[in-house]
Amino acid sequence: MKKYNIVIVGGGPAGVTAAISSRNTYPDKTIALIRREKIPMIPCGIPYILHSLNSIDENILPDAPLHNKKVDILVDEVVARNDHILELASGEKVEYEKLVLATGSQVFVPPIKGIDLEGVFYVKKSKEYLETFKEKTLQAKKIIIIGGGFIGLEVADELLKAGKQVVIIERLGQLLPLAMDSEFGDFVAEKLRGLNAEILTGVTVKEIIGQQKVEGVIIDDGRKIDGDLVVVSAGYRPNIELAKKLGLEYNERFGILIDEYLRTSEKDIFAVGDCAAKRNCFTGEFTQIMLASTAMAEGRLAGSNLYDIKVIRKFMGILGSFSTKIAGVALGVSGMTERDAKALGIDYVVGTTETFDRHPGKLPGASKIYVKLIFSRYSHTILGGQVRGGNSVGEIVNILSVMIQKQMTDMEIDTLQIGTHPLLTASPIAYPIINATADAIVKWLHLK
Amino acid sequence: MKKYNIVIVGGGPAGVTAAISSRNTYPDKTIALIRREKIPMIPCGIPYILHSLNSIDENILPDAPLHNKKVDILVDEVVARNDHILELASGEKVEYEKLVLATGSQVFVPPIKGIDLEGVFYVKKSKEYLETFKEKTLQAKKIIIIGGGFIGLEVADELLKAGKQVVIIERLGQLLPLAMDSEFGDFVAEKLRGLNAEILTGVTVKEIIGQQKVEGVIIDDGRKIDGDLVVVSAGYRPNIELAKKLGLEYNERFGILIDEYLRTSEKDIFAVGDCAAKRNCFTGEFTQIMLASTAMAEGRLAGSNLYDIKVIRKFMGILGSFSTKIAGVALGVSGMTERDAKALGIDYVVGTTETFDRHPGKLPGASKIYVKLIFSRYSHTILGGQVRGGNSVGEIVNILSVMIQKQMTDMEIDTLQIGTHPLLTASPIAYPIINATADAIVKWLHLK
Repeated sequence: MKKYNIVIVGGGPAGVTAAISSRNTYPDKTIALIRREKIPMIPCGIPYILHSLNSIDENILPDAPLHNKKVDILVDEVVARNDHILELASGEKVEYEKLVLATGSQVFVPPIKGIDLEGVFYVKKSKEYLETFKEKTLQAKKIIIIGGGFIGLEVADELLKAGKQVVIIERLGQLLPLAMDSEFGDFVAEKLRGLNAEILTGVTVKEIIGQQKVEGVIIDDGRKIDGDLVVVSAGYRPNIELAKKLGLEYNERFGILIDEYLRTSEKDIFAVGDCAAKRNCFTGEFTQIMLASTAMAEGRLAGSNLYDIKVIRKFMGILGSFSTKIAGVALGVSGMTERDAKALGIDYVVGTTETFDRHPGKLPGASKIYVKLIFSRYSHTILGGQVRGGNSVGEIVNILSVMIQKQMTDMEIDTLQIGTHPLLTASPIAYPIINATADAIVKWLHLK
Repeated sequence: MKKYNIVIVGGGPAGVTAAISSRNTYPDKTIALIRREKIPMIPCGIPYILHSLNSIDENILPDAPLHNKKVDILVDEVVARNDHILELASGEKVEYEKLVLATGSQVFVPPIKGIDLEGVFYVKKSKEYLETFKEKTLQAKKIIIIGGGFIGLEVADELLKAGKQVVIIERLGQLLPLAMDSEFGDFVAEKLRGLNAEILTGVTVKEIIGQQKVEGVIIDDGRKIDGDLVVVSAGYRPNIELAKKLGLEYNERFGILIDEYLRTSEKDIFAVGDCAAKRNCFTGEFTQIMLASTAMAEGRLAGSNLYDIKVIRKFMGILGSFSTKIAGVALGVSGMTERDAKALGIDYVVGTTETFDRHPGKLPGASKIYVKLIFSRYSHTILGGQVRGGNSVGEIVNILSVMIQKQMTDMEIDTLQIGTHPLLTASPIAYPIINATADAIVKWLHLK
């Protein structure tokens, strides 16, 4: 039997981060990470194996950070446990003092007739599966993507770049329907159409049809859409099998129940990342949103606090911070959208601005950038921000993430010192976060 | 006589921002902006007229934002005043209730023998001057740049791109000596040398020599460096002539004296931007640093508070946030450098990290990114950050700017939710601000 102080189950980013954070905080503890995959993938990089990366091997999540931090890697699977002893599929037994579950998520398989046909694929995280996925999609001519969320669109964008015909079918009324407001989803739809994608929103797939293999889908108005391959990108569900085996409390839909320090219902067991139930940071309600930004923050907080509460910061709930790039447009969001604010009945003010991300805008590489911010009219606090533009959107979202997490007010933002440079950012006079904030201030000051 | 509620003197970014902010806050006031220049330049864009922009006309600071905000532009100069009435060079008189001085800065002319020779140029802001400057530098073969601060280096980089031989002479021991720590200055020096620039640091120019016009310079060891044109980039001094005429209090070296709401010694007169004396935000001491980031924050705060204190946020002093791109490397800094911390005798911890700004790092467009953060060991507060890497540095600096202005601690940063994307940012596991923070935490936790 092997003995470790700290055992982490799951080799994705949340598990790796929890392991690194544990090591940083507890230099003398022994740490093992147990994972099923011999070779784990970088989850967010998966769409890019289709075209932008030369091979799937370029998307391997490296083991070096774990080796550097003296974390033992066991490629195995937990099948049972007895008190603090885990039994693995190989027959090996591993004793732990503190256990962190980072078992991740698995694709949601929607109940559509024909879903089991040959030629129906999902965006799964297994390298072996992805090798077939890549081979088959690149052999296909016309691909139907069910689901217009960001993963579906990233896959669509790569397939368009690879010269495929692509049809995107989204059941809600816009692309990116859960993540962003409609002017962002509609903007992306227009860009994708410009690349010859066919986009159907507000449309449900009734059936996937085909004899031996996929030949198309039937949508709710009875029309048939031809296609020789289907990619289903209809969300993910928390992996809670192990939690069930361990007898931990869980919610079937949202995941393993945890407190604000990522502790499960059992002392000595923590859960982080997609497998752990998430709550909205504003409302405290359960949410199905799964993001790396959340998983990493959870992994770091749990890793620091395994033996004692060292970092006195409770997990605030999911902020919902992410970015993507589709059809040449970078998009990002942090915090609440206008749709969220409406749904919650919050009295909000919107500030928007559009400018260039270089100054003067004639400099090579300049892109238009559009920023939309949501403020609480009552407390003047920033609640959320959405951005579309060039590559700088990726980090602009994180400026917003910090502002929202620090509950900054419009006036605090308006008086910030913000660095700018002709070749790197918008003009200081037109800096978009500041100007969208000023727009919101003007609105509540003069228009209410 | 013309009458305005608010008069701003100076048409640079600080003046424009003060005008826009005044209009946003006081919709019913009449506002005029008096400036000398018929056609003002974007100050930060000036180096790029040499090569990256097609013409100087592409670097014009647009009047549209002023027109949109109903600000009258008077191209004129204030020559005298009587109580609240300004007398202009044209003979026109203008009455104001509130006056904002944004008279900017002018180049510092170092006391070097031969400085008046033909062929010695400065990075001035006048369009007419810049037309000659561009013509003459592009005619020259070998150009000597005196001053290795960021403006000198930006000019050097453009001239290298234009195929010129370039010599950079910096009197202190590294490039960017006032702005960044030596590992950043030395990195840039290596990159510039890779583009065939000749770089001399720790070297003083004794004399500029030539018969009719510049033929070279003599440095302190007596050596002669050949060159047919000299660009002097030795800093700027506040423009305080008008303030003197108005009888305001000033410091000859640092500028017009202002309080934390940008008010001068006279009620009803404010000063913003390069002409206003700056204090370090940590020490409260005077500093000669002039940056757009500061000028804009001052302009916005003054503009909001002209008639009454509406925005209850005092100007904190200069943070020192800026970015640049030289020899293909983007660099940025916000807050205190390690050199600053040492000079102030602060007990600090440094955290560093290096990673790629895409993930996986094999994605097209990936650059290495290096982050160095300075934390107070005692209070755990972030005091400063420096970054070098790809274009995302421009906005990463602003994440740091917000963190420093909000006095965030290492643990707050370590538990932030930060959005990442393969095509836009570093990996969530390796996100550089977080990992440099974790490095600092590990250091004080285990090594002290």
